[in-house]
Amino acid sequence: MSRVVHITRRERFSAAHKLYNSEWTDEKNQEVFGKCANSNWHGHNYELFVTVKSTINPETGFVMDLKSLSDLLKEKIINHLDHKNLNLDTPFMKNIMSSTENICVAIWDEIQPDIEKKGAELVVIKLQETENNFVEYYGE
Amino acid sequence: MSRVVHITRRERFSAAHKLYNSEWTDEKNQEVFGKCANSNWHGHNYELFVTVKSTINPETGFVMDLKSLSDLLKEKIINHLDHKNLNLDTPFMKNIMSSTENICVAIWDEIQPDIEKKGAELVVIKLQETENNFVEYYGE
Amino acid sequence: MSRVVHITRRERFSAAHKLYNSEWTDEKNQEVFGKCANSNWHGHNYELFVTVKSTINPETGFVMDLKSLSDLLKEKIINHLDHKNLNLDTPFMKNIMSSTENICVAIWDEIQPDIEKKGAELVVIKLQETENNFVEYYGE
Amino acid sequence: MSRVVHITRRERFSAAHKLYNSEWTDEKNQEVFGKCANSNWHGHNYELFVTVKSTINPETGFVMDLKSLSDLLKEKIINHLDHKNLNLDTPFMKNIMSSTENICVAIWDEIQPDIEKKGAELVVIKLQETENNFVEYYGE
Amino acid sequence: MSRVVHITRRERFSAAHKLYNSEWTDEKNQEVFGKCANSNWHGHNYELFVTVKSTINPETGFVMDLKSLSDLLKEKIINHLDHKNLNLDTPFMKNIMSSTENICVAIWDEIQPDIEKKGAELVVIKLQETENNFVEYYGE
Amino acid sequence: MSRVVHITRRERFSAAHKLYNSEWTDEKNQEVFGKCANSNWHGHNYELFVTVKSTINPETGFVMDLKSLSDLLKEKIINHLDHKNLNLDTPFMKNIMSSTENICVAIWDEIQPDIEKKGAELVVIKLQETENNFVEYYGE
Repeated sequence: MSRVVHITRRERFSAAHKLYNSEWTDEKNQEVFGKCANSNWHGHNYELFVTVKSTINPETGFVMDLKSLSDLLKEKIINHLDHKNLNLDTPFMKNIMSSTENICVAIWDEIQPDIEKKGAELVVIKLQETENNFVEYYGE
Repeated sequence: MSRVVHITRRERFSAAHKLYNSEWTDEKNQEVFGKCANSNWHGHNYELFVTVKSTINPETGFVMDLKSLSDLLKEKIINHLDHKNLNLDTPFMKNIMSSTENICVAIWDEIQPDIEKKGAELVVIKLQETENNFVEYYGE
Repeated sequence: MSRVVHITRRERFSAAHKLYNSEWTDEKNQEVFGKCANSNWHGHNYELFVTVKSTINPETGFVMDLKSLSDLLKEKIINHLDHKNLNLDTPFMKNIMSSTENICVAIWDEIQPDIEKKGAELVVIKLQETENNFVEYYGE
Repeated sequence: MSRVVHITRRERFSAAHKLYNSEWTDEKNQEVFGKCANSNWHGHNYELFVTVKSTINPETGFVMDLKSLSDLLKEKIINHLDHKNLNLDTPFMKNIMSSTENICVAIWDEIQPDIEKKGAELVVIKLQETENNFVEYYGE
Repeated sequence: MSRVVHITRRERFSAAHKLYNSEWTDEKNQEVFGKCANSNWHGHNYELFVTVKSTINPETGFVMDLKSLSDLLKEKIINHLDHKNLNLDTPFMKNIMSSTENICVAIWDEIQPDIEKKGAELVVIKLQETENNFVEYYGE
Repeated sequence: MSRVVHITRRERFSAAHKLYNSEWTDEKNQEVFGKCANSNWHGHNYELFVTVKSTINPETGFVMDLKSLSDLLKEKIINHLDHKNLNLDTPFMKNIMSSTENICVAIWDEIQPDIEKKGAELVVIKLQETENNFVEYYGE
């Protein structure tokens, strides 16, 4: 009998960003985004949790080699986010509001095809911005 | 393409309570609830996690304004639970056994209509009582 | 109206293990499992989260008595894993690669019938091996 | 050469209490203690950290047997605090304001002679009330 | 007998910064500070722990009113750091390299006189930058 | 004015070990060490915190370059402990009871001269074995 198991890898990155809609006045940005619109930026230690699922490989006992998953995340995601400015430095966030929601969806789009190529299914991307809030994207 | 994202807000409250079924003898209460039936109460630091989902607003990048969600939770929930006695002080726990399960369901019922009015869908209420146990209610 | 609530109990165990496929050469084991194949073993503090669901018992406010769940987990699971060698000492891991995935599935198989006898439904077993990875098994 | 090492044991308790000075009016209590003066109590999950020091016993490698330290803490402290009302149920808090500071000092006084009898020196009692505040008493 | 107790308050702030010595070439900055020198900034969720000590006030059981300490920290420190750029926006970090060490010392200098005025003694400022590193300043 | 600041680096390792005094009978080992004497080993995720102090380098704002400290810890300590058997594989634990106390002191002895060569002073080694216990060695 083959069992389907979920496995989750945590990675971390520290980045600067701001929330700012360039089609709005400064006043409107201040009103909607508050201190998150600070023109000189602010930043966070983000925690990223990537969950994939698959049947267990009987020879290894693994759903997926975690080192291989971690290497993929470092190359495709962490290298472009860690110690970067999400609004200015990250190719896949170009012209996208850097809300936690949008970063989370962008990460899904960046890695989903690679996870599939490795024979697993991407289940959910969870992105924690502070100890009081996180978002999750299930691919809907 | 519009993506559906889950967002979770954590709030905390410190409260007193006891587990006691007034239709039972003290002996039966002691037998079923053990030290949780202590007549002079005990208490916990509870952690509340409220998860809602919606498509992303393209102008803000938000599923829902977190400050607005936090304000709602403070007004409707935390004000009635924090530094209170759940059995004696909390209107929406009147005549309800103050188990973590029942508190969790009561919180759902208190805020579900307001979340809907804000254009999002309430997904799950998670309530952590100690580091070793938590409950979740998905509205079933 | 009867509500279905999920309740989760955390237990912990500290164990030794190694990843090693006896049908492979040492070189292949080293290549696939890296430092996890260290012949003299290594070990972890594992965190186990067991989630069950049921309607709430109106007399107690409980989905399931947590002490009874904890006692079951200690007797059937923790006693066989804590301060043990998962490859050598654990009856239900005999001849099974001790990957986190396989331990998680084995725990499900050990306790699922007992949870059912108690009138609840086992929802998910989560097993955290380090702060950077965990697996979940939903019975699929 | 004999080395002096510190060892710390964590224990937890969940208790109800309130801050109330019976020589003051309700108004003054409310003004000074705010929501902590709620007449029907509130409560916390407290974390207690007890640190002792001694030279290492060369036969065991131990500063002190942790099981013996934990047993002492359970018998002398946790049994009187866990699932109790600190103002009403705890003998060593009789007629003492149940501030975190006073609980911490009272725990020191309760166990200091026993630690000494076991051949170790009590260094510090740390008591964490919420994730945002804790107190420490070094015996000064 | 009057006992001296330490009390610690935690506050949090999310800020952007970079490490850059303007008297050095870009190459030297890159060599010494690595990714921390990223010209477009990066950021962190900082955790600040402020520890003060004093004898216990017999009327309140307090070393110091925690709300008053928290208010002071918010007014003097958090308002100038949270959702700010430490290099550009923070008055007390003007012309100071924004290393965790220097931020920690600057916070000490900002609040030490106020703590003293409140009748307590500032013991240590601890500043945690990531889960893997923190600094402490004891006023030496 | 030159300020002395403490800086702490956390590293982690996962290892197998057992507590066993070879001059004792199995019965005596069982009696003293209990389940920690399991002949087939057990293991832990250890957390190591290394604290050093020094004046701040005015050019960098650093007490010590954290990357250099981390590299030293990886080379001298983590490489010999992570995914190893502390009793069989670790050169600096040869013929030493692998109690948390002894590991902590051994780590001090391994790195103290290197910290001094880097111009800083080693203050304390903290080693956390489980969430309920840790030891600290200050060089006494």
